[in-house]
Formats: sequence, C-alpha cells, structure tokens
Amino acid sequence: MATAAAAGTGTRTARAMVPRLASRWPVWLFQWRAACTPGAFVQQRTWAGASRTPSWGRLRGVASISPLVRRGSSSTSSQAPEVVLTCERYPVRRLPFSTVSEEDLAAFERIVPRRVITDPEELAASNVDWLRTMRGCSKVLLKPRTSEEVSHILRYCHEKNLAVNTQGGNTGLVGGSVPVFDEIILSTALMNQVISFQDISGILVCQAGCILEELNRYVEERDFIMPLDLGAKGSCHIGGNLATNAGGLRFLRYGSLRGTVLGLEVVLADGTILNCLTSLRKDNTGYDLKQLFIGSEGTLGVITAVSILCPPKPRAVNVAFLGCPGFAEVLQTFSTCKRMLGEILSAYEFMDAECMQLVRQHLHLTSPVQESPFYVLVETSGSRMEHDDEKLSSFLEYALGSGLVTDGTLATDQRKIKMLWALRERITEALGRDGYVYKYDVSLPVDRLYDLVTDMRARLGSKAKHVVGYGHLGDGNLHLNVTAEAFSPSLLGDLEPYVYEWTAGQRGSVSAEHGVGFKKQSVLGYSKPPEALQLMQQLKALLDPQGILNPYKTLPTRA
Amino acid sequence: MATAAAAGTGTRTARAMVPRLASRWPVWLFQWRAACTPGAFVQQRTWAGASRTPSWGRLRGVASISPLVRRGSSSTSSQAPEVVLTCERYPVRRLPFSTVSEEDLAAFERIVPRRVITDPEELAASNVDWLRTMRGCSKVLLKPRTSEEVSHILRYCHEKNLAVNTQGGNTGLVGGSVPVFDEIILSTALMNQVISFQDISGILVCQAGCILEELNRYVEERDFIMPLDLGAKGSCHIGGNLATNAGGLRFLRYGSLRGTVLGLEVVLADGTILNCLTSLRKDNTGYDLKQLFIGSEGTLGVITAVSILCPPKPRAVNVAFLGCPGFAEVLQTFSTCKRMLGEILSAYEFMDAECMQLVRQHLHLTSPVQESPFYVLVETSGSRMEHDDEKLSSFLEYALGSGLVTDGTLATDQRKIKMLWALRERITEALGRDGYVYKYDVSLPVDRLYDLVTDMRARLGSKAKHVVGYGHLGDGNLHLNVTAEAFSPSLLGDLEPYVYEWTAGQRGSVSAEHGVGFKKQSVLGYSKPPEALQLMQQLKALLDPQGILNPYKTLPTRA
Repeated sequence: MATAAAAGTGTRTARAMVPRLASRWPVWLFQWRAACTPGAFVQQRTWAGASRTPSWGRLRGVASISPLVRRGSSSTSSQAPEVVLTCERYPVRRLPFSTVSEEDLAAFERIVPRRVITDPEELAASNVDWLRTMRGCSKVLLKPRTSEEVSHILRYCHEKNLAVNTQGGNTGLVGGSVPVFDEIILSTALMNQVISFQDISGILVCQAGCILEELNRYVEERDFIMPLDLGAKGSCHIGGNLATNAGGLRFLRYGSLRGTVLGLEVVLADGTILNCLTSLRKDNTGYDLKQLFIGSEGTLGVITAVSILCPPKPRAVNVAFLGCPGFAEVLQTFSTCKRMLGEILSAYEFMDAECMQLVRQHLHLTSPVQESPFYVLVETSGSRMEHDDEKLSSFLEYALGSGLVTDGTLATDQRKIKMLWALRERITEALGRDGYVYKYDVSLPVDRLYDLVTDMRARLGSKAKHVVGYGHLGDGNLHLNVTAEAFSPSLLGDLEPYVYEWTAGQRGSVSAEHGVGFKKQSVLGYSKPPEALQLMQQLKALLDPQGILNPYKTLPTRA
Repeated sequence: MATAAAAGTGTRTARAMVPRLASRWPVWLFQWRAACTPGAFVQQRTWAGASRTPSWGRLRGVASISPLVRRGSSSTSSQAPEVVLTCERYPVRRLPFSTVSEEDLAAFERIVPRRVITDPEELAASNVDWLRTMRGCSKVLLKPRTSEEVSHILRYCHEKNLAVNTQGGNTGLVGGSVPVFDEIILSTALMNQVISFQDISGILVCQAGCILEELNRYVEERDFIMPLDLGAKGSCHIGGNLATNAGGLRFLRYGSLRGTVLGLEVVLADGTILNCLTSLRKDNTGYDLKQLFIGSEGTLGVITAVSILCPPKPRAVNVAFLGCPGFAEVLQTFSTCKRMLGEILSAYEFMDAECMQLVRQHLHLTSPVQESPFYVLVETSGSRMEHDDEKLSSFLEYALGSGLVTDGTLATDQRKIKMLWALRERITEALGRDGYVYKYDVSLPVDRLYDLVTDMRARLGSKAKHVVGYGHLGDGNLHLNVTAEAFSPSLLGDLEPYVYEWTAGQRGSVSAEHGVGFKKQSVLGYSKPPEALQLMQQLKALLDPQGILNPYKTLPTRA
C-alpha cells in the first residue's frame, strides 16, 4: 500500500509527513501554499458563478453561453453549434395538447402583465438544457411573481389543455427542466422573495425561485447554513432542488430533503393552491402530502414556496484532500473517518486519477497532492475548533501512518477550502470540455462502487476518450462519466443497457440524485418493480388527469 | 433568576457548584450517588419492560394488564373495570363491511394454519388500547409470518369486503391500533425476523413486527443504534413506528423517519405486494412511494418490511438533569445548549414541577435535583469522551454561573443515565395512575410552548386534578396532559375545541407525533386546509377504494 508513496515525488510522502502531524498542521498549510499559488491552481469557479446560465434578470438580450458549451476553448455563443431539437434526436411524439394562440397570449398578459416573453432570442436559452443535449421549441415563457399568478396560469392551461414546463435555474442533467416540444415555460425566476426566517429555530420560508447560493448567504448572515449544497448553487432554484430531491455535498451530514423540508406550497394542475407551508418540526396530522411533490420533477404540481430547516453554521470547517493508493484504501479511509471523526464528518467525496487529469487539462487546476490512483476530499464541520483539530489530526496521523493515504493537504480558511472543493465540484465542467459526455448517476453498495468504472473501461477500450468515476462515496453515489469526440449511437449501444443491467444486478439505483427527467424514463424499471411504476402512473393520473404538467418526463408516456 | 437557587436546600445551589465544575464532574457524580440510592429513586422501568402489553408469544392464556390500568396500586386484571365499547362511547356507525363467517375462518386457516385466533380471552387484550379508552369487538386475529401470507389475507378480505385493523405492539395513544367494531385484527407479531444488516453502512432490513428495543439491542451489538427511541420501545413494533411516523427521543439528533427510512415493503389493500425495500441512501427513480405509507397509520397499506439507516453507536453518552427557575430560562438554556454543545446535543427534554410531583407520588421516584419550577434533561452523544466532557463542562459552568440553571446532576454510566431518563419517560405512566387523562400532543413555536399549559391551568381551575406540560422542547413538541378523577363531558367541553383553536391560532399542529388514529380525525382541519384534506381522501380512495384498511381512522369517515 505504501508503494505509491514511495514512488512519489519523494518530498511529501506519508512517512515524511507523519512526524510533523503530531503537533497540528502548520507544516501542511505551508506545503499547501507552496504547491498551489492561487493563479496556477484554481482560477474562477465559474460553474457556480457568473458564467453559468444567468438569472432571468440578466438574461434579456444576452446570448449567454455556459462553459460546457465551449468544447474548444475559443468557442463563443455565435460559434456554438445549434443543439439538435429533442423531437428530432429522440423518438418522441407530441401529445394532443393545444397550441398557444394569440388569445392565450392575451389571457396570459392579463394574468402576468409585461411578464409574457415571446422574443425568440430570449426564449432560446430556456429551450436548451445546460448540457446542450436537448432543445424544445416553446414559443412563450411566463414569469409569475406570486402563487396566485401561478394558480391563474395553471387554471387557464388546465381549461385550455395547454402543456406546461416549470423551470427553475435550468441546471438539471436529465433534461427535466426544458420543454420537449412547445410546452409553455413557467419560470420561477421572479418568485425570489424570502418570506420569513426564525432566528431561534433556523426555519426559513421562501418562494421557490430563490437561488440556493443566495439563500445560503442570507442564512449564513444569521449564523445558519442551508442543509444542501451543490455545484450548481449559483444558478439553481430552491424549488427546483426540491422538485428534483437534490442530494449534493451536504447529504452525508444533514440528510435528505425529505427530512429537512418542513412545508411546501404547491399549485396543482387545475390551479388549486395546496398550502402545506407549515414551519413545524413535527406534524402528524394526516398524510404528508408535501412528500408527493419532493422529487416528482414538476409532474404532479408546481412548488411555489418552501419551508426548510437550516442547521446552525459550523464554527469550524476543515477540508483535507488526500491521495489513496487504491479503491480498497478509499473505502478503508472512509470507515476510519466515520470512526475517528464521528459527528463532525460532513463530506466524503472521491475522484479517480482520470478526473484529476481532466480538471488539470481543461481547467488548468493543479493537484495539491502527489499523483495518486484516487483522491479523497474529507470535510469536517463542528462547533469547537480545537476539538475538531484534534480529531482530524488523529485521523490523518493514523491514515498516513497506516498507508491508507499516501499524501495529503489540509485547508482551514474559506478561500483554500473553496479551492480544494473546486477540484471535486468542477469535474462536471471539465468533462463537458472533453467532448460529448455520457453521464450516469448510480447508487451502488460502496464495496462494488468502483467496479463499474473498471468494468466499463475494459469494455469500451479505445472507443471512449475517458471513462471516469467520482462522487459522493459516503452516500454510495457514483458518477460514472464517459467522454467521446461526439455522440455515437454505437458507443451508446455499448453503454446501455449494460450500465443499467449492471446496476440492477447490484440492486442499485439507476438514478441516485439526478432524477429521471426526459432521459431516464425508460430505465426506471431497472430500479423499480412494475407494481411501483403502476402506482406512480395512478398518482400522476389522480393529480394531473390531463397530463399537462411537465409532459414526457419522469414516467414513461402513456399512449 | 437566582432566587430559586438561593431558596433551595442550600447544599447544592448553583453558586456552590460552579467552582467544582472547572475540573470535570466527579463531585457531581458523587452528589448524584448520594442523592439517589437506586431503590429509592427508580424501581423498575416497567413501561418499556415486561409489564407492558406482552408480545404475542407470551400472551396466550395470560390475562395481561398494563401499568396504566392500575389506577390504584392494588388493581389486577380481574379487578379492572371493563372498558366501554368504542361504539357505545363515541358516535360512530359501522360501515357496511361483511361480517366474518365460518367460511372466512376456514379460508384464513388455510392461509395461516394454526395462527387464526378466535379465543375471546386472547382477543380481549388486542381489542383494547393501551390507555384503556377504546374497545372493539373483533372476533378474529390473524398472525401471518410472511408478506405473502399478508398478501393472501388482504386479497381475500378485499374480495369479501372484510375490514382489517393492522396491529403492531398496540402502544398507540390515539386509538389507531385497535378495531372500532369487528374488524379483523392483522397482527405483525410473528413477522419478527431481521433480514439483513450491513456492517459498513449500518443499514438494517427487517420484518415489520420486530420490537424496537430488540432491534436496538441487535444493532448495538454491531456498534450502531436505531435512529429512533421512545418510551414504548419494549413493546412497539418497527412497522407501527413507521405507520405512525413516530418521533420520540432521538428526533432532535437523527431527524425524521422520512429521512432515515430507506425502503419499505408494503401490501396494498387488494393484496398487491409493493416491494420498495431498497437499501440505498439515494434513489431518485420516480416518486418516493414509501413516503405515502409512513405516517398513514395502516390506512393505505400494510407495512411488512423495513430498510432503515442506523447511526453509529456514540462512544460517549452523557445526561444532565437540570432545574430551571422559569420557562424563559428553559428556552435560554436550549439556545445555550445548541451553541455550546453543537453537534453532540442529542436530546433536550423538559418537564414542569407538576410532572415531577406525579412521578414522585405515583411511581416513588425522587428528584435528583432540588425543587424547581421546571426540569430539563440534556443528553449528549459523541465520538470522543474527553471532547464531549469539555463541551458539557463549559456549558454547565455557563448555565449555572449565569443563573439559567439553579441545580443539576449528571450521569455518564448506562444505569444512571437510564434512571435520569426514567423521570422523563415515565411521566405518561404516572399520569395514568392519577386518573382519567386528557392527552394533547401539539407542535407550537417554542417561545409560546408553555403558554398553553399556563392558560389551561387558569381556564380549568379546580375542575382538573393536574394540568401538566412536558415534552420534546428541542422539536417544539408539547405534551399537554390534564387529569381528573373520571371522564367528564363537561371537562372535555372546557378542553375542546379550545386547545385545538389555541394551537391553530399559533399555526401549530394538533398532532405532533401521536398521529390521528380514531380520536383526532375530526380535528385535522385545525392544522390542514380543506384542499389538503380533499387530496388525502383522494389518495385513500385510490389506494383502498373499498376502505377496508383500518376504517374509522385518520381521515374523517365518508358517509
């Protein structure tokens, strides 16, 4: 296990580091600083920042382009190739919804005056998903500000049999957030008001269109944090997070949204406002209706407001970035972490060497540790710095001493923590720059997690540019990504249904956190039995009998 | 704030204790030992133990009686007055279900041979709820061992229009677990097998009839704990815990079952087995159907197996029992706890002086601290003893020094911790011995939590024997209990709907964790809007069109 360390650069092997660890970590920090001058290491975290799909307010008239669009570094909006229409790429037939008429537009104008968008340029960005693999041809986008406006819109659409695609930050990875044909786009972008915040309990109530990062900033000022965090935080809306039951980076510590969300306000397909927006930690008065809408991707109702429990802001946050000689050591390091860090462990993420190669090549980030087959990011969040330091120090000393980890670096201040996180968070972006990306997001038993990557690498050989594995190991969640120069039906045939069958063979989930959207409808059966799929269809029929809400998504479309 | 301390016994006031605290707590422990010789302090925790409704295996032929039955200490089963039939005490009409025939019994005998109970004596205990306020007249109890047997039973009942009451440990407090008329009792008692346990992840899969305490023992041997704990742990079944979305004592730390339950197997009303028994922390493949059944009290399906995530067993557990001079100090102590104990705080419970008086009077427990208007139980659970000790020590020093707390005692070993917990857990039992109990279980904003108790005390005056308040303050959950010599419609009229209107006025929940069952159906509207109630009825109609599952419960019965 110590081979990789011995074969390393020599100056920062495990053996060399252990003695220094005994008296805390200034030496590490020094090494870290020396290895990573900010300019060379991490430039701008653009994925979560300004270059992501901008908010609606900034969108008007600007031909926006996300980093993933730029497959070559010199691409710009005008040079980017037009995305193929979804209805041309995929075998999908338009359902018999009405088509938006002038009369409908006039009606919408009465409901949301001056917030009915029909300008094709402005619509363009909302018709295309962030990965630029899907394009709809919606002719109208509506920007309500209130739940009542959403109610009026849906009541009208329900009466007129008009299909509706609710859109938050449009950061989804499975094509759930853009129209497939000409569905009306219902944007939550202007529903961005905080309604209340309770300082004692940390309960936040806000509209669905609030941007996650802005909410986090808001509650951080009040000494709390949002219970979820993800790479798309700078653009994604809290309503979209709930509609897709987002997992993300804080899941290991703060758990599922199904536990932290206390209440929802939802507008049903016929315009009924369902107000379950309570701010109570416990409420057993009847069936918990809000759970129906969490994770249903806008197919059962439109989430308009949210009540969510925010955990206290940790006083001490530390991030260690470690190199591991093999996947067995990644697993053992995880067990060790759980045992030695206990309640302060807040994230355990892993990435393989090919991921590091890609972020280096495409984003010019440099690794802060010596080359290793695997890298692990360990985050702790606690209430007392010196206790956390001691726990982490003991853990690192053990991990290095026992050869589980061959090299490591540590950050305790906000800026450096962000830089280490960028290595993990920006993998998606780097992959996008590498070529066409085939994305899989699966849950597997942790001990078999990486076998899928190794297996795919052997199976695809030179057909793929890269086969990489990374993800939320602490949650059993692997992101398997395969890149190629361009989309190829032949390569797709090698990947699918093989990946799904492999996952089903382990009783895993074929969609751990990305959801189903448009792209994964047909593979639900790998993770759910027919009885479950039938009940889902019955729920859809009950709540949206005409099927106007986000059609062609989540469940296989019925003829 | 220091008045109570100054007026105390003199030997253990806050001022006297603070200096000793600086160097950890042996002094406290010594005081604790001196004050509480086991015999005088806590006898046997019977509520969770052998004298609770015994498991089915032990039930045969034994006229079992729970402690609550014994309103006078010398009562026995034969002396206990017969409980009034539910259909005589409450205005409820039998719905047009079939009546069990000899032919039906023969069919059941084929499905579950020798596990069809018709002996009236054996049925008696299952027809009466634990509080002895409800009695059904079921003529048959079935004891399936497998999900397939449950499926066959329900398919048969569905075809024959026979109503079914699923029963776990029969520990519910709202009459949800016993038949109202002659519903067939479907007991999960023999479905008590652990199916699997993953040592790395702590994921337990088991049948629904496993007893919570036994599961906890099972996983504790493997260095994990169950994510929930409650007073009825010695009798309640995990399936019943999920069917009622039990809250309990670990909720503050480990959160809702909606987050910790990973999968369920459920048999639907028509006998369909819905297998969503996955063991994945993340799974976004379609709607999360299991959530429908959590908290639906057996009205939408019968939970037959469970997959649940168990947290690691904490290495250090400490319990402090503190006296507070007022409710304002109880709240401030809670804020201080959260700030100073952070991630190791695992429970914050409170009880008022009248609660202490009742456990002293009826159970002969003695308070380990001087008399105070309020008592608080603080539990910490952490991974490193010396760190937890330091955090707790700092907190106690501050709380005592600032006058938030006027007296306190601390326990670190298992036996003493249990004794301190008994003071809080056995309040229910003490209340039962005080007379007829009117029970309310509400969620309120924490700062208004105790006002309801004060208000009721003033409103009822001498009409009540005792008006007490206690509960899970950390979760905003108050248990308001009123005792009287006997049931009185006049006193009930003073209590209801006043309590519900008061709670609704604070946007609280009229059932925080006990559920709705038979007793609270009519008050759902105080916490849920008509649109929500309508959707609940639609879900019931979808999943159980004939209404055979646990009729007369949870939702208002439709004519």
